[in-house]
Amino acid sequence: MALIVQKYGGSSVSDAEAMKRVARRIVDTRNAGHNVVVVVSAMGDSTDDLLDLAAELTDNPPEREMDMLLSAGERISMSLLAMTINAMGVPAVSYTGAQAGIMTDAHFGRAHITGMVPERVARSIRSGQVAIVAGFQGVSSDDDVTTLGRGGSDTTAVALAAALHADVCEIYTDVDGLFTADPRIVPNARRIHRISQEETLELASHGAKILHLRAVEFARRYKVPIHVRSSFSSKDGTWISNSPANPELQGLVPESALATTQEDNVEAPIISGIAHDRSQDKITVVGIADTPGMAARLFEIITAAGANIDMIVQNVPTSGTGRANITFTLPSSDADKTMEAIKAAKEELDYSDLWYNADIGILSLIGAGMRTNPGVSAKLFGALSEAGVNIDLISTSEIRISVVTKLADLDKAVRAVHSAFGLDATESEAVVYGGTGR
Amino acid sequence: MALIVQKYGGSSVSDAEAMKRVARRIVDTRNAGHNVVVVVSAMGDSTDDLLDLAAELTDNPPEREMDMLLSAGERISMSLLAMTINAMGVPAVSYTGAQAGIMTDAHFGRAHITGMVPERVARSIRSGQVAIVAGFQGVSSDDDVTTLGRGGSDTTAVALAAALHADVCEIYTDVDGLFTADPRIVPNARRIHRISQEETLELASHGAKILHLRAVEFARRYKVPIHVRSSFSSKDGTWISNSPANPELQGLVPESALATTQEDNVEAPIISGIAHDRSQDKITVVGIADTPGMAARLFEIITAAGANIDMIVQNVPTSGTGRANITFTLPSSDADKTMEAIKAAKEELDYSDLWYNADIGILSLIGAGMRTNPGVSAKLFGALSEAGVNIDLISTSEIRISVVTKLADLDKAVRAVHSAFGLDATESEAVVYGGTGR
Repeated sequence: MALIVQKYGGSSVSDAEAMKRVARRIVDTRNAGHNVVVVVSAMGDSTDDLLDLAAELTDNPPEREMDMLLSAGERISMSLLAMTINAMGVPAVSYTGAQAGIMTDAHFGRAHITGMVPERVARSIRSGQVAIVAGFQGVSSDDDVTTLGRGGSDTTAVALAAALHADVCEIYTDVDGLFTADPRIVPNARRIHRISQEETLELASHGAKILHLRAVEFARRYKVPIHVRSSFSSKDGTWISNSPANPELQGLVPESALATTQEDNVEAPIISGIAHDRSQDKITVVGIADTPGMAARLFEIITAAGANIDMIVQNVPTSGTGRANITFTLPSSDADKTMEAIKAAKEELDYSDLWYNADIGILSLIGAGMRTNPGVSAKLFGALSEAGVNIDLISTSEIRISVVTKLADLDKAVRAVHSAFGLDATESEAVVYGGTGR
Repeated sequence: MALIVQKYGGSSVSDAEAMKRVARRIVDTRNAGHNVVVVVSAMGDSTDDLLDLAAELTDNPPEREMDMLLSAGERISMSLLAMTINAMGVPAVSYTGAQAGIMTDAHFGRAHITGMVPERVARSIRSGQVAIVAGFQGVSSDDDVTTLGRGGSDTTAVALAAALHADVCEIYTDVDGLFTADPRIVPNARRIHRISQEETLELASHGAKILHLRAVEFARRYKVPIHVRSSFSSKDGTWISNSPANPELQGLVPESALATTQEDNVEAPIISGIAHDRSQDKITVVGIADTPGMAARLFEIITAAGANIDMIVQNVPTSGTGRANITFTLPSSDADKTMEAIKAAKEELDYSDLWYNADIGILSLIGAGMRTNPGVSAKLFGALSEAGVNIDLISTSEIRISVVTKLADLDKAVRAVHSAFGLDATESEAVVYGGTGR
């Protein structure tokens, strides 16, 4: 008997039919002899409906009230799901974030979990009940309702799995798992069978709309195996895990999915997948003094403006001038305020020109195998060159290479690189792709 | 500066426009120098929408989950209302039943308040915030969400007013107050200016769809003056109160509305109003033994069946037979199970026949003045006789006379009695009538 945490996104419980399908799956898991704890998001578009209601009343709602409002969505879905499971003959009880002991700080709208005390959930498990927990929400030390931000239900699920020492955290969504690239761009992208938490982090933070970043960070820290799969089929999805398998899982976690490290898995591909990102812009500060401290000052100013920068490249100074160019990328939504802040500091920074380019895309090649396989960058640059794609900037980590291209070249680049690294599916699989909800 | 609790029903906050109108009224009260605590119900039909959702999934939902589901409605309305008030420049904070310290027993769906600890609400008042409290809901000692049943928001408001020692509890609804009779039956019914809590209890428990019975009981026990008024106008409504006025209310409570007792008020009418009830049926047990204990046994059986009986009349035994007839009325929804229970006990009760009649109506004449005014029943029976209405059963209390008529005669009877007691409005006032929501 294993303890399984299952998380269902809003699209999995969008109406009565979907709710019944989810309930049936939970009951089946229960009847197979496992304990089940369920984390559920608000139904379908109900969160957007609540946001629309608020927008009719004010442009600037207090964040505390916004969290109170949005938390209603999960109350509805979780109680309805508990009723449906009860109607199928299995006892089920729903818990709010507060009742499930999900303690957070008081940063409304983007609260971080500060502690997990899921006593009532544990008691439900012991007494044979399915516990249904509201995703996305917690409670502050002042007893105020908080929400964890977009994708917060994933974080709830992984945190609960960690606190309850669950054997696996299943994230149900409307796609079959993680893919080697976005199937809307690469129609013959392959489902990834298994991927390490580090690689998933790189994919998620470089544009792949998969799991919430914080959920993966939690999973890595507390060694929670995650299984991302479709709520519309019983097919195996994608395993995100570095941990050894629990023998009690009885086939729930395939051995191959739980090799201790990526390197242990001899069949592991060098490249796990390709992420792309259209939401970044590029800014270049031209002719800034190449002295210690000047770059630091520039990034202090950018940080004070509230921008999250991603890639940074500094050119070698043009000989004799003592001047260099600094280029960085950042989310489009941060571009205006950042440009203003740098312009306002023109005198202090003493640069000669400021360039802004919204017309860029970023391709990231991710794979733990590249650590031990030389030649990955050469193959990447070769593939791009062959496809006629110019590379603007390059940045790398241990298990990732990112390149900036023209926005118009991005799709072509992703397809070319996907083929060059042998990721194309041998036969065309029918894939469904979409977001994972909140 | 007074402390005013204002309760707004679902029809008062049915959409964004209505929400803004309510927020404006709260802000105006605040700006007039008063502290305001607001109790709000779920928006418009949203409770029914939630019930429909549940009905799509199961016929027999667990009551705990039902309460969890329904409590979402007030979270939405209260947070939206708080946002709207904030947008008008007045600080406002919303509280769930649990956060407002509304402690209840664990009878889901019909919980009773067991304690009030509105610490956070009191703190909000002290710091100059408008506190918005979810109506209809509380929290059990097990930390489970409970609801107080239909009309529960009225009870929340009166209980909060009592706990906070508020000067007045204003119940906003979509009608102008309480009327001498249902204006849909008696078009020239008059708005009641002032009425005692005892009379209101009699009206509410005999079919008048006004305040929730338990709210009035609370108001009587804790001496909370209630002002029932329309959220669509600034007109004075109906005052329900026995208590002396607080001089700080500065005109909020007219002196005439707060005479110490009904008798003190020399202008008090003998009759306050007429209630009618179409929802009762009549059962007669024919030829039951007229021995001590047999009637008691009959009502034990009825009580065990879960029926709430209202009027009871026992005929004088037919001379020499030692047998009597016992007639009683009860809600139509209780009739089937009661008939079955009595049939099942035929042998024990040893009656000769059992009659059932769903075709009845009950008219109740209510007025504290009838205690000191002889001749009220004579006038009542005279008016009914003149209108050609036969009286079937009669029952009385200190301040009420109820008569059972044929259902088809009920409206005619109400109009005749209303005229006979001089309750008709001298000039036709435009009245609006409806329910008070939950």
